[in-house]
Amino acid sequence: MTTAKRDTYTPETLLTVAVRVFNERGYDGTSMEHLSRAAGISKSSIYHHVAGKEELLRRAVSRAIDGLFRILDEPGAVRGRAVERVEYVTRRTVEVLMAELPYVTLLLRVRGNTKTERWALERRREFDQRVSALLKAAVADGDLRADVDIRLATRLLFGMVNSLVEWYRPHPEGAVTGPGGADGAWAVDDLPGTVVRLAFEGMRSAGR
Amino acid sequence: MTTAKRDTYTPETLLTVAVRVFNERGYDGTSMEHLSRAAGISKSSIYHHVAGKEELLRRAVSRAIDGLFRILDEPGAVRGRAVERVEYVTRRTVEVLMAELPYVTLLLRVRGNTKTERWALERRREFDQRVSALLKAAVADGDLRADVDIRLATRLLFGMVNSLVEWYRPHPEGAVTGPGGADGAWAVDDLPGTVVRLAFEGMRSAGR
Repeated sequence: MTTAKRDTYTPETLLTVAVRVFNERGYDGTSMEHLSRAAGISKSSIYHHVAGKEELLRRAVSRAIDGLFRILDEPGAVRGRAVERVEYVTRRTVEVLMAELPYVTLLLRVRGNTKTERWALERRREFDQRVSALLKAAVADGDLRADVDIRLATRLLFGMVNSLVEWYRPHPEGAVTGPGGADGAWAVDDLPGTVVRLAFEGMRSAGR
Repeated sequence: MTTAKRDTYTPETLLTVAVRVFNERGYDGTSMEHLSRAAGISKSSIYHHVAGKEELLRRAVSRAIDGLFRILDEPGAVRGRAVERVEYVTRRTVEVLMAELPYVTLLLRVRGNTKTERWALERRREFDQRVSALLKAAVADGDLRADVDIRLATRLLFGMVNSLVEWYRPHPEGAVTGPGGADGAWAVDDLPGTVVRLAFEGMRSAGR
């Protein structure tokens, strides 16, 4: 039998627990019972805070989506040449992924079985299209190569950026940590800047 | 009640069905009952071909792993400058992902709960390290930039390459297909070549 602790949760702290369980078990595989056990409070206490697990999902993915869309309104994303704006958005996207790791991880794993999941997928697609439009403008300016399909470039750019949720683990001293095993941890000074350099300048030395 | 059809499977054709079910339900979420229903033959017929679901997993991920490791023995991967070898391996890795999509998808989703999964993760890590060593040699040759951590570059390169399993869908006429919805399908002449160009030369126009 579960011994329920006194419910001292706020909707925000309950969300932290729920996101961890969703990421561990998958949203589909998580029941209110799992959430109740992880939080150490009764199911009726959870219902005191939220209408159900789909509300927790909506709050969690909204946090990730809002963080990403806010980038697009920042001065660096709206002023200057398109290539600078898209590099800025790429850098800030990596920063938001690092800062909101569990929330973005959940967003990227959403599958589309519920209304909330389909809405989240639609918003992700919208964000991708905004970045795609910036890439297109930068090609038109002559700053980005014209020999690569924009939609494909968008996918590959996000493939690189979004892979962070698979291997980036925050470290107390700011080092980037591999997923354990033989790799261990290693220090990276500037992960967002490195992603931008590799994506836009490539791995080859200048002039090669 | 399941009406069992006559068992005309070979271990190979049974594998095709199993990999599809593993990718849909997750390996952990797949029971012999699910496999039996998907194949339309009895569980005992499946046991006639294989010892159990872990043997099917081992055969499936072996196919992906063997395909990847064979690349490293090809002439393009063992002769020439390190930078040319690593570009060759990147191109061929994309080709193997496209050709063996369901098998590589399964490999990339393996989590490590069973002995076979831990073995598969270890082999993946070994492949990444072989590519990492090539990148390191190319930096030492002066062909790749020295201002990026090699382990990080390896992760980002594979992040870009492996993202294919999320969005690449083969098309009868060779077009690359988006994951449905507003994106639709679009044609890409040379996906492996595009990945190599973006990863090594970057998105910026030459000289910018």
